[in-house]
Amino acid sequence: MSTSNRVFIATSIDGYIADADGKIDWLQSIPNPENIDLGYSDFLKGIEAIIMGRNTFETVLSFGIKWPYQLPVFVLTSSLKEIPEIVKTEKIELISGNLKQILAKLEHDGFHNIYVDGGRTIQAFINEDLIDEMVITIIPVILGAGIPLFSGIVNRLDFRCTETRIYLSQVVQNKFVRKRD
Amino acid sequence: MSTSNRVFIATSIDGYIADADGKIDWLQSIPNPENIDLGYSDFLKGIEAIIMGRNTFETVLSFGIKWPYQLPVFVLTSSLKEIPEIVKTEKIELISGNLKQILAKLEHDGFHNIYVDGGRTIQAFINEDLIDEMVITIIPVILGAGIPLFSGIVNRLDFRCTETRIYLSQVVQNKFVRKRD
Repeated sequence: MSTSNRVFIATSIDGYIADADGKIDWLQSIPNPENIDLGYSDFLKGIEAIIMGRNTFETVLSFGIKWPYQLPVFVLTSSLKEIPEIVKTEKIELISGNLKQILAKLEHDGFHNIYVDGGRTIQAFINEDLIDEMVITIIPVILGAGIPLFSGIVNRLDFRCTETRIYLSQVVQNKFVRKRD
Repeated sequence: MSTSNRVFIATSIDGYIADADGKIDWLQSIPNPENIDLGYSDFLKGIEAIIMGRNTFETVLSFGIKWPYQLPVFVLTSSLKEIPEIVKTEKIELISGNLKQILAKLEHDGFHNIYVDGGRTIQAFINEDLIDEMVITIIPVILGAGIPLFSGIVNRLDFRCTETRIYLSQVVQNKFVRKRD
């Protein structure tokens, strides 16, 4: 059975996922009166598990909201040794080590379509050519500085843009699929 | 009469306009059997003059092709003092100084819709909030390194994506218009 590792992320026009202060409030700067989810629930329909980095995990926890994931979440971390008490009852597992081995184990456990989240985690996957699809939503703002989605990438990789659409009359979402032919 | 300064440029997925060696051959990496122009001639229809930086000017000259512009070209430079012999008969003018003053003079001379080209020139315009529209074509490749379209930007600027389309089944072109309301 084939597997697919997918990204669903928002950036500024200049490619940042957080501003220079690490803040992401600008992601919410577009009026969204009906609170549409910009394709997120459709994206999740094809997903069986989530892999995120520790930064992203701790950012989600910092929101102080109810744990937002129903799907199993695997947190890539070498430093974190225990799942924080507050989310102890959620489907969360700490993992570390070689990405290909991790993915082989997940596949063996029935997780074929993985949502890969967090800048550094995405970069690590890209650097091993393990990303198959990226849905990138561009919030139409030039930030000037911040945390880039793509940094520390060592190899050139070819994709194909297969879908594009505009949300809320101003946000554009492009879907890129890895070209492996 | 209102004026409009417009960008029409291609970048990689990770936002580079040239690779780490300054090369742009990857821009031509997408098969284009009918040699379509990805909207370029349509874009030019609304344009009365071109402003480009010296780097871009010299890059165009380095191609060793016939001068490709019919429109008047203004080359922003403080170092170049003379138009090279080979393009002496073309509609080229060297300009320098304050961007707002340059634009006021161009407007006075009947040039209201300007095509702004070249990374550093675009950045200079953005930093004075003088860009009204950007048509950004994303060649679907992650390069990993290169010359970024956006760098040295000092202020946050809000745009709106008004159009998007896919060319050649894999290249996406997004049009962003500056939000001034």
